[in-house]
Amino acid sequence: MDKIVSLARRRGFVFPSSEIYGGLGSAYDYGHYGVLLKENVRARWLEAMVRERDDIVALDSSIILHPRVWEASGHVEGFTDPLVDCRTCKQRYRADQLDQAQCGKRPSKKPGETSDCDLTEARHFNLMFKTRVGAVEETGSDAFLRPETAQGIFINFKNVAQLARRKPPFGIAQVGKSFRNEITPGNFIFRTLEFEQMEMEFFVPPDSADEWYRYWVDERYAWHLRYGVRESHLRIRPHDADELSHYSSATSDIEYLFPMGWSELEGVANRGDFDLRQHSEHSGTKLEWVDAGTGERFVPHVIEPALGLNRSMLTFVIDAYDEETVGDNERTVLRLHPALAPVKAAVLPLIGKNADMVSKARSLFEELRVDAQVEYDDSGAIGRRYRRQDEIGTPFAFTIDEQTLADDTVTIRDRDSLAQERIALAQVRAHLTDALHKPWSSPKA
Amino acid sequence: MDKIVSLARRRGFVFPSSEIYGGLGSAYDYGHYGVLLKENVRARWLEAMVRERDDIVALDSSIILHPRVWEASGHVEGFTDPLVDCRTCKQRYRADQLDQAQCGKRPSKKPGETSDCDLTEARHFNLMFKTRVGAVEETGSDAFLRPETAQGIFINFKNVAQLARRKPPFGIAQVGKSFRNEITPGNFIFRTLEFEQMEMEFFVPPDSADEWYRYWVDERYAWHLRYGVRESHLRIRPHDADELSHYSSATSDIEYLFPMGWSELEGVANRGDFDLRQHSEHSGTKLEWVDAGTGERFVPHVIEPALGLNRSMLTFVIDAYDEETVGDNERTVLRLHPALAPVKAAVLPLIGKNADMVSKARSLFEELRVDAQVEYDDSGAIGRRYRRQDEIGTPFAFTIDEQTLADDTVTIRDRDSLAQERIALAQVRAHLTDALHKPWSSPKA
Repeated sequence: MDKIVSLARRRGFVFPSSEIYGGLGSAYDYGHYGVLLKENVRARWLEAMVRERDDIVALDSSIILHPRVWEASGHVEGFTDPLVDCRTCKQRYRADQLDQAQCGKRPSKKPGETSDCDLTEARHFNLMFKTRVGAVEETGSDAFLRPETAQGIFINFKNVAQLARRKPPFGIAQVGKSFRNEITPGNFIFRTLEFEQMEMEFFVPPDSADEWYRYWVDERYAWHLRYGVRESHLRIRPHDADELSHYSSATSDIEYLFPMGWSELEGVANRGDFDLRQHSEHSGTKLEWVDAGTGERFVPHVIEPALGLNRSMLTFVIDAYDEETVGDNERTVLRLHPALAPVKAAVLPLIGKNADMVSKARSLFEELRVDAQVEYDDSGAIGRRYRRQDEIGTPFAFTIDEQTLADDTVTIRDRDSLAQERIALAQVRAHLTDALHKPWSSPKA
Repeated sequence: MDKIVSLARRRGFVFPSSEIYGGLGSAYDYGHYGVLLKENVRARWLEAMVRERDDIVALDSSIILHPRVWEASGHVEGFTDPLVDCRTCKQRYRADQLDQAQCGKRPSKKPGETSDCDLTEARHFNLMFKTRVGAVEETGSDAFLRPETAQGIFINFKNVAQLARRKPPFGIAQVGKSFRNEITPGNFIFRTLEFEQMEMEFFVPPDSADEWYRYWVDERYAWHLRYGVRESHLRIRPHDADELSHYSSATSDIEYLFPMGWSELEGVANRGDFDLRQHSEHSGTKLEWVDAGTGERFVPHVIEPALGLNRSMLTFVIDAYDEETVGDNERTVLRLHPALAPVKAAVLPLIGKNADMVSKARSLFEELRVDAQVEYDDSGAIGRRYRRQDEIGTPFAFTIDEQTLADDTVTIRDRDSLAQERIALAQVRAHLTDALHKPWSSPKA
């Protein structure tokens, strides 16, 4: 993980938030390539969940919802972590994860393992960030930053079913920020105080819920493979009965082999009719499906695939990270799927001071940028420029050299195979479009 | 505005948030077409600000920043509204906007105009939402939800300049949510408690600040025109000296003629070196530009174009809204620029019950959706389906009819001119791609 954090910082993908003020624990800002990569992951998810389907519509609900939403959902009551304090070293730990923590005084030990430790009883703390809405503090009302996007979907079930003229089975997909005020073990952007979720709630007739649950586990597993995650590093782990949330009859984690071990990448849960029933009861609005023709009515069951955008991005980077020796040189390369790569191609004049090369390179760059995110670079030695593009995962580099000036051909360099071939300058744009759209054969071991 | 609100609701673009719980003032959720439209506006801004330029990079900073950021920026001290209460009717008003408000008891009067009114002195209330970070309330620290994305850019100036190897003039662009706990006059999504901003901070040598300020006013004005806003409804209004923020030497509003009158659509401000100096002072980190070669050093001045994504979307919808009589029928049509339209084309079998038409229509739909957001609809009379597509602003509709079954041609219907022509089924995909990419000639009066 250290290598990933270091690359992410060096190339400006991700860095600690509020750094000049000493930072804020578990908060990160995304730089240029980080934004582009995150946008691409988001776009691939929306494509797979909305554009490529007839049965899912998009939604963007508010971060601050009516406070009673969180009473109905059970979050006010039950969305808590058990915490203990050490009275000697003043550290705070999750009571259920003491075995993963370090003692504040003697880091080689776990909290409670030394005689210095004086741990309090575990107390439950709510993980929702609280604020007040209303212009004046004394008359405002308590409100919460959403800890998940899902509830914004449930409370809009009726609106969407009516306005988008949908009948179950159909889904509502949403991408947006959620907030959890928790103690995190510090695995970079694996878990952060604010994070972006990509959640989809799929509403189905009760008797088809099991079938749709299995469908979505398979479908989501396939999505991660589609964008290049190695099959050897991905597994489906059904929850045991004693791990299940009280509302869920079945949940599977799609786990990835992170540097710290197998951990949840995405969760797929059969939430039953719990949420719609809770909101019906608390709001007084019946959230059910009524068929205008037959009069048939039922409360749909819900299948939920929920993925963290930041965690998904981290997974793609970890899985793509590679180091290799080429001749006498070491290189670090991100073997990202071209559809995820922040920059699709680099345009490089071999000699940055040669006006003719620069001019040809600039005009190729202007042509390519119409279709795709491309980068022009004429700084320093060509080897350094290639290495920089390798580190950000740019699949192709086009180099303008002496021969280009003579015959209008350029070299195209492949990030993964390092093969170079010459193609006509006039064909570069079409070549790049084709290369980006053809099925990708992963070079990963 | 009522017609816009009604259309937005009817077609599921935008509806009041937390509606089943009685709503939350000034908070809205975005339905399917609203999300698609908002995504398109966002993508066009990012294209113009990042992809099409060499001198701007992207950033995505946290919503909850270190609390000292807001001391340095002046928000803790000065980001307030003056409020007055009426002791009789218990209403709260903005003291500086009493002339736009209604008395709670006698709505035909303004607050303070009747003898019943008993207004308090104006008091200043901070508009930032406050919360606490840290797992336990008593040991956590106060934090704020950002009221603007700009400060997240300023505090990352040094990181970005180094990591993205940029020298002034260069810019940093960011799209993200901001939060302001304010009393709003209720103009739909013109101003809401949480909203998405598209801000770009452009760092320049001090002596070129005036020039760059004028450049960005023109550039941003042109962007709104580029995506179809009528020139007659857009104007640039430079702030008078007494309106300027204390840190700004010049600001212009790009104003749009909204239903409630000319109001700010986008602001372009010359912020000088205020922000970088404040954060240098408060953080102890020098935020300045040092040229490694020449040793030249200066604190860049900043030009800031700042646009609300939701307000921009509202503007495009208002400007595109049209009603017209066609033969004996009325129709409502959104004459959106094709690059903004939530759905690019509809595929419609003339007779929804004809299996051959449906089959041809479905296969055309499958072909087109690879490139673009398209919609298939076989429900009800064709006239109704056309009207629905008109209302969501779909530029093209392809209809599969009897003749299609005979000769594999389809009609293409143009949203604006209502012209219909026949083209070969095999050419539809290329035709649509061309039509979406060619310059758009606005049909608006």
